[in-house]
Amino acid sequence: MIYKSSLSLLTDFYELTMAYGYWKLGMQDKKASFSLFFRRRPFEGSYAIAAGLETAIKFTESFKFEDSDLTYLEGLKSPNGAPLFEKKFLDYLSTFSFECDLFAMPEGTVVFPYEPLLFVRGPILQAQILESLLLNVINFQTLIATKASRICYAAEGDEVIEFGLRRAQGVDGAISGVRAAYIGGCHSTSNVLAGKLFEIPVKGTHAHSWIMAFDSEKEAFDSYASALPNNCIYLIDTYSTIEGVKKAIEVAKTKKEPMLGVRLDSGDLAQLSIEIRRLLDAAGFKNAKIMASNELDEKIIRDLKKQGAQINLWGVGTNLITAKDQPALDGVYKLSAIQNDQGEWVSKLKVSEQLVKTTNQGTLQVRRFYDEMGKATGDMLYDIENEAPKTCTLIDPMDPSSRKVIPDSTQGKDLLVPIFLNGKKVYDSPNLRDIRLNTQKELDTLHPSVRRFLHPHGYFMGLEKSVYDLKMELINQVKEKK
Amino acid sequence: MIYKSSLSLLTDFYELTMAYGYWKLGMQDKKASFSLFFRRRPFEGSYAIAAGLETAIKFTESFKFEDSDLTYLEGLKSPNGAPLFEKKFLDYLSTFSFECDLFAMPEGTVVFPYEPLLFVRGPILQAQILESLLLNVINFQTLIATKASRICYAAEGDEVIEFGLRRAQGVDGAISGVRAAYIGGCHSTSNVLAGKLFEIPVKGTHAHSWIMAFDSEKEAFDSYASALPNNCIYLIDTYSTIEGVKKAIEVAKTKKEPMLGVRLDSGDLAQLSIEIRRLLDAAGFKNAKIMASNELDEKIIRDLKKQGAQINLWGVGTNLITAKDQPALDGVYKLSAIQNDQGEWVSKLKVSEQLVKTTNQGTLQVRRFYDEMGKATGDMLYDIENEAPKTCTLIDPMDPSSRKVIPDSTQGKDLLVPIFLNGKKVYDSPNLRDIRLNTQKELDTLHPSVRRFLHPHGYFMGLEKSVYDLKMELINQVKEKK
Repeated sequence: MIYKSSLSLLTDFYELTMAYGYWKLGMQDKKASFSLFFRRRPFEGSYAIAAGLETAIKFTESFKFEDSDLTYLEGLKSPNGAPLFEKKFLDYLSTFSFECDLFAMPEGTVVFPYEPLLFVRGPILQAQILESLLLNVINFQTLIATKASRICYAAEGDEVIEFGLRRAQGVDGAISGVRAAYIGGCHSTSNVLAGKLFEIPVKGTHAHSWIMAFDSEKEAFDSYASALPNNCIYLIDTYSTIEGVKKAIEVAKTKKEPMLGVRLDSGDLAQLSIEIRRLLDAAGFKNAKIMASNELDEKIIRDLKKQGAQINLWGVGTNLITAKDQPALDGVYKLSAIQNDQGEWVSKLKVSEQLVKTTNQGTLQVRRFYDEMGKATGDMLYDIENEAPKTCTLIDPMDPSSRKVIPDSTQGKDLLVPIFLNGKKVYDSPNLRDIRLNTQKELDTLHPSVRRFLHPHGYFMGLEKSVYDLKMELINQVKEKK
Repeated sequence: MIYKSSLSLLTDFYELTMAYGYWKLGMQDKKASFSLFFRRRPFEGSYAIAAGLETAIKFTESFKFEDSDLTYLEGLKSPNGAPLFEKKFLDYLSTFSFECDLFAMPEGTVVFPYEPLLFVRGPILQAQILESLLLNVINFQTLIATKASRICYAAEGDEVIEFGLRRAQGVDGAISGVRAAYIGGCHSTSNVLAGKLFEIPVKGTHAHSWIMAFDSEKEAFDSYASALPNNCIYLIDTYSTIEGVKKAIEVAKTKKEPMLGVRLDSGDLAQLSIEIRRLLDAAGFKNAKIMASNELDEKIIRDLKKQGAQINLWGVGTNLITAKDQPALDGVYKLSAIQNDQGEWVSKLKVSEQLVKTTNQGTLQVRRFYDEMGKATGDMLYDIENEAPKTCTLIDPMDPSSRKVIPDSTQGKDLLVPIFLNGKKVYDSPNLRDIRLNTQKELDTLHPSVRRFLHPHGYFMGLEKSVYDLKMELINQVKEKK
């Protein structure tokens, strides 16, 4: 944690006005259940990689309104000039402690639209107030882990280095972005602070400015190789790429250390890398690597590979760290059930003028089924308050004609695991290296057609029949009330 | 500053390996000059709004390698297993103090492609090592301030509320993003921590979850209005927008406080808002406002206004805080001059296979000229080491046939001002409200055609002739050396 204090005020203002409302009405301890899920398939792929949980756990554990926070809130005025919050409410906030249950998918889990990545169940004020922070963290890291998984898939096992610090959206866009990129499959980063915080390997040699700081390119190469003989990848495109590689070869021949490689950051990467490879091989530097960067993403990398590009190391910046083609996951956090005065759970859903904005009700668990090869065959959403029957019928909520019968639903795997119970952490967070391995294992459960970049196969996700039937009933109730 | 410690390790690893190289070669105090500029017009507009300077100043002032940073660096190994950095170099870093000059455009300044937003001049190791952090901060905040200025332009003076916390790229994507959005013209934010840190007004009432937590929509409205009578904007689209507004009206009629307004977050905002306005007016709530959100950006707002949408408050989230259609400014930080052993400045440029990647040499100041109406007529880039002649010829480096003669160049205004001299801060940072006003003043100097969203007029920016001539000479030298 690089933050001086709790981030409890990193929230939308309406979380606090609602908290005040619940407190004023004496409803603050009424139990409610909220689910976090996204609707739109990121990057027109089919899946996402869940990430950000560990960060969310840390923020939740350190959630606390500090004196300066309360002083700030005390000073806020209504439009008519009166103080917005009563002092007694602020006293109440100062005693805030987290008492909810929180279930979540472990980081690295493959997740599909409308599946809860997590749910929070507990006193409504507490469960509500976490909304903005949870969304901020999970949306962003899940987005970047997903993007990284696609880029690494295109790189077919080559090393992918995260290079995005200078273009990341702010300090934490860089830091937690690198964490997520590593979870998604990147091997290393140029970002030293992220390397320090998360024990991710850091990589880098020199910039164009190094070359320009010397009277000639050759002198620059020679000076760098003398100063850092064991960490020298020559940047060859400051003036002319092909002349640059020739000079790098000349210099490398005079050194006793083996040539690690060269880097290029402009021009046509396919044509240039093929020519560079030829020159390096001819000079006897068969083990020297070719590193490339310049507006790379999964589609360009795949194309370059198709065109025979001789690139071994891929430096990926802007397009990865900002997920440029879709810079936000549209995750939401929706109330899905509430306890009535008799302590019974009542399912809730939001009906919308837009079908995609209608939510699923209940506290939903995701159960995934696999074939005998270990490939995932479909997911079931069922309400944890009602155990699913042994033989289940699943119905796709977006296309009710698409159904699937599961003969033995006990064979599946529940994806959301308890993280907090009654506010107490019950989860041992894996280290980041193991999370990254988990991503690889999870991706291996997907049939390749599900990973296709263009028009991927639609993975089956259905509501357990009783959940689907209740959803239709609730929608009809609302429509009839009109 | 919300960070526990200095962010000196928030840098690309190559900054540190280059620093080590310069130190090993005894070149660490050789003077160099670096310029920060972007190449591509953001959002296909013509201009950007400079932002992030104050944040950059704070990071620069607190720049310091702490013990844990040095311990981390000491543990880094070369590919061959040897320690990467000598202990003596780390001792040197521990004594690091900033001794450079830094000139920059004040925040809120209108800036065009290839114009330096700042330059740093001083010992090469120091000036180089700030690269990544300066780029991260300035790129992101400039991007968001620019986007905000466009959205507010489309809103034609209506209040624009920043709503993006849940979709922002990480914690700081939200926090410094709001700062920049406010600089660009937004009036308020839902982000409470940003409100606290920067004294930006915060806004918000309740979510769909509030409505769903009650047995009926009407009960929910009534409860909220009772609990927070002076901060109540009814969210009316949980079940059906038109039924929702009718219920809000019923409830508001029973209250003694005037109805502040209603909010909608789905459906067709033009049609719905017109009908809602009619219903509110008919009920006598002529002053009640209509607030709308849902994937808004400058183009949608402009369209909605054209279609007669009756919206007074615009809540803008994802598309603003991530600058969704272009989530990164392509700012770079390039060496442009270096002192030789005789203490003379030698201009440097990077030639590229791609024309747009060829840089301008020298330590360039931007001088802007205005007509008698106060409208900006063109910008001149000149080398501060050589005072520009009284009568100047300016040449567009991207199109040398485009030229302009300035009869009296002393009449212009230099846009970059001293921020640090010899490492000492000489600049009084304005408060954020004044920065925001400066943005408005700056935008007022632009002819409306320069602000057009589609195919804006290309504002004239030229190199002072001696800079242009030297650039051509340097390019030819490089090409001939091939």
